Amino acid sequence: MTRKKEIESWMRSLQTSITTGLEQLDGQTQFTQDKWDRSGGGGGITKVIENGRIIEKGGVNFSAVHGKTPEKIGKALGFEASQLFATGVSIVLHPINPWVPIIHMNVRYFEMSPNDNHQKSTYWFGGGIDLTPHYVDPKDGGLFHQKLKTICEQTAPDFYPKFKNWADDYFFIKHRNETRGIGGIFFDQLNEKSTNLPFNELWRFVQEVGEGFLPIYSYFAEKYAEKQYTEQHQKWQMLRRGRYVEFNLVWDKGTKFGLDTEGRTESILMSLPKNASWEYNFLPTPGSPEANSQEWLKKGIDWIGYA
Amino acid sequence: MTRKKEIESWMRSLQTSITTGLEQLDGQTQFTQDKWDRSGGGGGITKVIENGRIIEKGGVNFSAVHGKTPEKIGKALGFEASQLFATGVSIVLHPINPWVPIIHMNVRYFEMSPNDNHQKSTYWFGGGIDLTPHYVDPKDGGLFHQKLKTICEQTAPDFYPKFKNWADDYFFIKHRNETRGIGGIFFDQLNEKSTNLPFNELWRFVQEVGEGFLPIYSYFAEKYAEKQYTEQHQKWQMLRRGRYVEFNLVWDKGTKFGLDTEGRTESILMSLPKNASWEYNFLPTPGSPEANSQEWLKKGIDWIGYA
Repeated sequence: MTRKKEIESWMRSLQTSITTGLEQLDGQTQFTQDKWDRSGGGGGITKVIENGRIIEKGGVNFSAVHGKTPEKIGKALGFEASQLFATGVSIVLHPINPWVPIIHMNVRYFEMSPNDNHQKSTYWFGGGIDLTPHYVDPKDGGLFHQKLKTICEQTAPDFYPKFKNWADDYFFIKHRNETRGIGGIFFDQLNEKSTNLPFNELWRFVQEVGEGFLPIYSYFAEKYAEKQYTEQHQKWQMLRRGRYVEFNLVWDKGTKFGLDTEGRTESILMSLPKNASWEYNFLPTPGSPEANSQEWLKKGIDWIGYA
Repeated sequence: MTRKKEIESWMRSLQTSITTGLEQLDGQTQFTQDKWDRSGGGGGITKVIENGRIIEKGGVNFSAVHGKTPEKIGKALGFEASQLFATGVSIVLHPINPWVPIIHMNVRYFEMSPNDNHQKSTYWFGGGIDLTPHYVDPKDGGLFHQKLKTICEQTAPDFYPKFKNWADDYFFIKHRNETRGIGGIFFDQLNEKSTNLPFNELWRFVQEVGEGFLPIYSYFAEKYAEKQYTEQHQKWQMLRRGRYVEFNLVWDKGTKFGLDTEGRTESILMSLPKNASWEYNFLPTPGSPEANSQEWLKKGIDWIGYA
């Protein structure tokens, strides 16, 4: 089996194991699935869950596409014309209960083969997990980051600090001067050249990130799914979802790239919540749980210290 | 009085006359106002209305700012370093009743003075009005476009067809392959050079666009504000608002430029609705009023023919 086929097949089974696990966790509803083909080559399976016990709206997307490299990518990497293969799984879950955090996970693999035989082909991995609690509990933040640190340290000691900072920078809503949530890890363009680690170690790392998702999310979902909440909590949740929408549509490079290059819109925008709200110049009451949560939305917090 | 002062003063009074008119129309609530200063020079007044009889959330923004030209603009126009003056009024109103359309209006004036005395200073006007009905009635569309055509024809016979097509192209949600609404007029970089019309005629045209807004919106608001609606209509309204959010955050050049250049976020994003929703792969029932409305969301419709 080629490397491409092996990774594609693993991505496909990751989608299945995660959706099965989430259905067991939710207990009340199941994913519907949409198979789609990409006109240029390849396709995907978009699995969507709606109106469950825990999850109000969520998607687990698998895709494996191939074809001519979009000009923007090719040029950035110094290839005149080439073939691109890309496969990955991406997830966003919006819970019903405002005490349960929003979560996002993505693992992806790219391989680019130049049409010109004089140039070598290249590959890279990307991905990450980040958490967006509507209400931030620093101890939870510490736990979450500790789990990611443990995953990272199985491969390299510098991965966690590097990828944690990368997430802080990536999941940043510039026009609000705040982070989307409490961050996590984000990495891109991982290969032998950029890390000095062999393919097999990087590939195992990416698998561990993918497999880490379900237990991490299950922990927070089970902890808070039945916690009582008020209209005030829901109102804040809707406003935070508004910020999530702002990040995804204004700043998320993956979303922008997908929408710009005629990706499958419904699969890309499955990341949006069922509903969101905006209020002009909303400022939470000083000292309120909402104001306290907002204070945690900044870069550079050493979450591990709160575990 | 300099040209700049004259236009700024007119923009300021347009904001006042429109907000006064909208308060009379709504009859139930008033605008609150926020004065703000821009650290680089100038400032504005953001007026916001919430939870009225007709308008659920809306803003009428006036600004007059000056200072160093942002590099992107200067370069695009061939100036190394220059001073920019910009003043305008922009409006977005989201109604409560799904039968009342969303409306947007903007008039703006720019003047750029190069620091290098060998280069001449330049000015231009921009703006437009466009309508986003949740439910499209082609006769209403015809009426709306006829009113804009009449305004345009007072200045030049080619303005309406040109600016109508410009609106079709501008208010286009590329990733959905649909227009935001039924369009209207959009124009930019209007000056003597681009139109062969003297400053005074262009300035009068822009004033007529600004003054045309209130009677146009009042007509549709009064016509539909008391029309009965169901939960189904509201659900569709929320989904259409979702598309409005997508356009504004993904494609609207004004929004992107503002957020990118550290404009005042709350004034820029006052265009967003109080709430919006998303449903994975929502397809209206064939033949339903929702499906019929969706069919009108395309470029190139000769609305005048439906008046």
